[in-house]
Amino acid sequence: MEELAERYLGNALSAWGLDVEYDRAQGDTVYLPGPDGERTAVTDFVGGFGSLFFGHNHPELVAHAKALLDAGTPSHAQLSKRTEAQRVAAALDAIVRRELGATEPYEVVFANTGAEAVEAAMKHAELARVFRLNALAAEVAAHARDAEERARAGGVRLTPAAAQVAGPGGDVAALVAEAGRRNAEALGRAPEFFALDGGFHGKLVGSLQLTHNPTFRLPFQGLGARARFVPADRPEEALEYVGAEQPHLLDVVAEDGVVDVVRRPVPFVAAFVVEPIQGEGGIHELTPEQAKRIADVCRTLQCPLVVDEIQTGAGRTGAFFASAGIGLTGDYYTLAKSVGGGLAKTSMLLVRRSAYVKEFELLHSSTFAKDSFSCAITEKVLEMLERDDGAAYRQAAERGARLRAALEEVHAEFGDVVRGVRGRGLLLGFEFADQSASGSAVIRNYARGGFFGFAVSGFLLRKYRVRLMPTGSSPHTLRIQPSYAVDDAAIDRLAAGLREVCTVLRHQDALHLVHPLTGADTPLPRTDVRDFRSAAPAGEDAGAAATATRVAYVADLGTPEALRRFDPSLAELDDATLRSFVARSAPVRAMAPCPPSRYRAADGATVEVTVFPLLVEESAGDTAGTLAADVAGQVAAARAAGHTSVVVSPALRRLTGEDVPAEAVRAPEGLVLPAGFDLDGHPGLPPAAPAP
Amino acid sequence: MEELAERYLGNALSAWGLDVEYDRAQGDTVYLPGPDGERTAVTDFVGGFGSLFFGHNHPELVAHAKALLDAGTPSHAQLSKRTEAQRVAAALDAIVRRELGATEPYEVVFANTGAEAVEAAMKHAELARVFRLNALAAEVAAHARDAEERARAGGVRLTPAAAQVAGPGGDVAALVAEAGRRNAEALGRAPEFFALDGGFHGKLVGSLQLTHNPTFRLPFQGLGARARFVPADRPEEALEYVGAEQPHLLDVVAEDGVVDVVRRPVPFVAAFVVEPIQGEGGIHELTPEQAKRIADVCRTLQCPLVVDEIQTGAGRTGAFFASAGIGLTGDYYTLAKSVGGGLAKTSMLLVRRSAYVKEFELLHSSTFAKDSFSCAITEKVLEMLERDDGAAYRQAAERGARLRAALEEVHAEFGDVVRGVRGRGLLLGFEFADQSASGSAVIRNYARGGFFGFAVSGFLLRKYRVRLMPTGSSPHTLRIQPSYAVDDAAIDRLAAGLREVCTVLRHQDALHLVHPLTGADTPLPRTDVRDFRSAAPAGEDAGAAATATRVAYVADLGTPEALRRFDPSLAELDDATLRSFVARSAPVRAMAPCPPSRYRAADGATVEVTVFPLLVEESAGDTAGTLAADVAGQVAAARAAGHTSVVVSPALRRLTGEDVPAEAVRAPEGLVLPAGFDLDGHPGLPPAAPAP
Repeated sequence: MEELAERYLGNALSAWGLDVEYDRAQGDTVYLPGPDGERTAVTDFVGGFGSLFFGHNHPELVAHAKALLDAGTPSHAQLSKRTEAQRVAAALDAIVRRELGATEPYEVVFANTGAEAVEAAMKHAELARVFRLNALAAEVAAHARDAEERARAGGVRLTPAAAQVAGPGGDVAALVAEAGRRNAEALGRAPEFFALDGGFHGKLVGSLQLTHNPTFRLPFQGLGARARFVPADRPEEALEYVGAEQPHLLDVVAEDGVVDVVRRPVPFVAAFVVEPIQGEGGIHELTPEQAKRIADVCRTLQCPLVVDEIQTGAGRTGAFFASAGIGLTGDYYTLAKSVGGGLAKTSMLLVRRSAYVKEFELLHSSTFAKDSFSCAITEKVLEMLERDDGAAYRQAAERGARLRAALEEVHAEFGDVVRGVRGRGLLLGFEFADQSASGSAVIRNYARGGFFGFAVSGFLLRKYRVRLMPTGSSPHTLRIQPSYAVDDAAIDRLAAGLREVCTVLRHQDALHLVHPLTGADTPLPRTDVRDFRSAAPAGEDAGAAATATRVAYVADLGTPEALRRFDPSLAELDDATLRSFVARSAPVRAMAPCPPSRYRAADGATVEVTVFPLLVEESAGDTAGTLAADVAGQVAAARAAGHTSVVVSPALRRLTGEDVPAEAVRAPEGLVLPAGFDLDGHPGLPPAAPAP
Repeated sequence: MEELAERYLGNALSAWGLDVEYDRAQGDTVYLPGPDGERTAVTDFVGGFGSLFFGHNHPELVAHAKALLDAGTPSHAQLSKRTEAQRVAAALDAIVRRELGATEPYEVVFANTGAEAVEAAMKHAELARVFRLNALAAEVAAHARDAEERARAGGVRLTPAAAQVAGPGGDVAALVAEAGRRNAEALGRAPEFFALDGGFHGKLVGSLQLTHNPTFRLPFQGLGARARFVPADRPEEALEYVGAEQPHLLDVVAEDGVVDVVRRPVPFVAAFVVEPIQGEGGIHELTPEQAKRIADVCRTLQCPLVVDEIQTGAGRTGAFFASAGIGLTGDYYTLAKSVGGGLAKTSMLLVRRSAYVKEFELLHSSTFAKDSFSCAITEKVLEMLERDDGAAYRQAAERGARLRAALEEVHAEFGDVVRGVRGRGLLLGFEFADQSASGSAVIRNYARGGFFGFAVSGFLLRKYRVRLMPTGSSPHTLRIQPSYAVDDAAIDRLAAGLREVCTVLRHQDALHLVHPLTGADTPLPRTDVRDFRSAAPAGEDAGAAATATRVAYVADLGTPEALRRFDPSLAELDDATLRSFVARSAPVRAMAPCPPSRYRAADGATVEVTVFPLLVEESAGDTAGTLAADVAGQVAAARAAGHTSVVVSPALRRLTGEDVPAEAVRAPEGLVLPAGFDLDGHPGLPPAAPAP
């Protein structure tokens, strides 16, 4: 069967050893089927990216789902009374009142996914803004009519400010006309949102604009409303921006025979959207002080504060709302993930009654939303959270503390390669120190390629049977979010795995990472971790580089011998393992450039060569079918790094035929090659005869 | 329990008699619980807005869902191998090849809802466009570098066109600089989409911009990418628009010592999105000729054609794809609704391989998408559709034909009040003739308020036990889409109900509609339909109106006596029924204005009074809590209709206190009231002393 569902992504998973298929899931455990019918148990710390507070297939929830199916639940009964939805809304309202001290009810709009709830929040905020805008415009129009009426009755005069707008010799009619022209422009100002640096709020066309990660967002910036990002510790930048950008309506006001113009600010900020703890952004918690300052900014701007609790909510931090822990009170809340219990795709937007626009209900809808099945599952989830006076919240807090202590111990032991442990409850981040200057070429490449966390996850999965993933926007941070019932043995296994990773990183010994990722069934050639720190190449010498002729060399680097020279820690791996490594790496074979090497050329000039390697073995062929594009990508990367001379290796030229851009294969004119540097040979690592 | 989940919408349902709660659903039947434990069976022609090709809770699908739950399906195993997804993709590909004659594979991206699939299509199309744009920009930049290099070598001359861009005395460097400036602007052109008038593609922030209905779209137009709508029978308007708007890059090309500028069009159209049969827009089928012309437009524009089969796909029209019936081949397809079998929230975007951008897989994702449970359900749905050589498709075609014949018969009998029957297979529309000029004030108001179809649906539900809804953008069209197994008895019951509605409309006898909507448990005061056509007021006399003093009168109209005068067909309804009608109508109590009446005033001038009624009874109080806003709304409606004199009735002023805008309660100066017309009394219908 040809794979037609995201084959490219699947191949990338393979590069990181993550290409496994689970066939069963229960609690915190997912199972890998084996050839003999036996299953391998893996502890799942990904937890459905936060959707599994109660774990996979919680028996009580499964039983409830089956009972709903047996009862012939009328899930698709759109536009009828949905009592389950009302019960969910009432239960959420009670929690909001208890945890956040809300004094007025929150109205609930249902959607299907987290991103959809954010889109509903965006639409609701914009509708509220448009209503405010229209009311302001109507008021200003009424004032203008009144002024004109009075002017017709005679005996009015313009203030100097009004006269300036009216223009030389202009009367009230001219003033109103000019104000109307300017006001139309001010009213057309596009709405904007504020969000935080590092924030993540979804990947649909609208919500994506609030997601900070430029990789995800920038290609699509033409599609959506503008959002501006401000740092969590400087939310007042929003005020500065609005102060500089603020459009105004000219309000023509007549009183006591005097016609004046008053500047009325146009509300163009629709909302400010924040997560109490950033998840995808790398597990960063808002401090109470930051939360207070953000709320102050919203009050000043008179815009709603949208608190995105999609990942943090429903118990994960030891309370229903993570906001509760930092004194953050939103005008809106979004919920998803765990409120569906891992079985229902459902999400909610909560809006404080005095900020609620009821007409929204007639404008927004979704075929699948508010269905009886999902609402009944959420009702059960809320009951399970709230029962026994919140025992589930307490258990989450206790398990989170145990997990955190284990992670902190690893941090304490490996301060050199661990940056820190962050988060709250069962939403924790474990950040490695940046490895993009590691002496191991393989580790360095993982780091520079942005998939360090994936490779580490593959290692931990293969060797320690723990399932993890990095956060999307902080690839050195593992996101750890098991269920409220994660057990000590699983936590200890995770800690042991992290210790080995840290040991490997500290010693820059990539062999231990690479071997499991290849799926090799041979034993490790050596089990000890050796110290390769002395093998690290010297860092770049930027000062000298500026005076040298600079050449970028896009080279294939796929033979076992070249790989062993490239990263000496791999030396003991056999050819089969290294070939498997190359083959699996096809989707990510464009590697980070090596540190530059300098040579004295025949004419005495210094030549600096930077190798841009591609992990491709000629004999293996183009398994990913993208070699030409990958070569072009490396050429582009070299150009972007400021190289005007880019040379593609003959082997790559042969492999790709005419698909390499013609300009890329032109050897730079006048280049005298350094002795010992053969552009037609395999450079692997540049040979060992550097310039003085 | 206070209702916090869309109470306003719930109240609107109550106004139309649709405020019922189903507690069981099986096949085409939904059940209403009764006080005695007995259930009332209702045939569901809404079919989950097209999600229930196999009906509610199909036993085979329910059994499969339960088996998946029992097996501990690892639904939340993001970023692992998902074989179910691959099997679904392969099965869809086989269908595409068979039905649409595709010669290359379609790649599949999963999402959760129809709107999400459309958003994925929008993002994918935009990514493909950005890639094309970047390649074009890189090519133009390389040409410019080449030209500059040659110019430095000397001996080049500019063509006149190039010289004009370079400016007086400008050289190649000046030419490249000016071209670069202009090109940056052209590259910044925002992307646009084309869609069809009447099209519906979802209500998320992005997809909403492709949804034509201005009510749904316009309040949110600041949030999204621009879309332009063209008529299905004039898709070439897209070409005209692009021709007029087309930005160009200036490509500086050097050849044989001559430097010229070539204008290269910037691809700014991301995609053209169409439904083969518009659903929400009123059941309008594309003709094969329209489909061909749209495809031609896309070819000319080199933009992908996105075929939205969310509602039409998965068997509904007697084939998997409705496109197949009209020779439409898309570059993309979107699927949702019935592919989830009524149990799974899932959707897909299919992209033809040669139009596919694999990097999309690394940029787009969703926590809930591609889950094993949903994929396994879709796999079963596809198997059920395809088994027995497509027996389900054939059955859908046969049932559709039977249903259509029944509807056509009603149309033939009631050509005066039925506009037509449209659609294909089991996606049919039954459109009533516009009733906004009906002699019955109640029917007229339903039509003018845009909820005629809801009131008719309420009547059919209450009296004939058939569940229907109008389409959102064509409120006189009932959307009829039962399952592939709908039986003859249900179809006959629907036809009988439609016959009664048609009889009532023909005779303008609203009593029969109003009585069931009130939920009255008293029998109808009369069962015969009487002819009220002679009671219809005369139409407006625009010529005469122009010379009269015009007054708008916002009046309460809630007492039984006033209602009986307002719509004489209601005369036999008792006070309790009429009061219930008023109470239930609270969310939609702002009624359409009455035809104007003219009076001779005491001084001989003609006064024309237009009543803007509010269905509110003073003694019942403000049950919806929105009276002040509703009064203000009527005042605004009167102003929008050109009335400068707007008078609010004293009763409404009393009820709303100070919330009525001050300007609205000012009696127009100099107005001499017509004899017999008392602004302080209940006008109800204007009294019977019209001007000559």
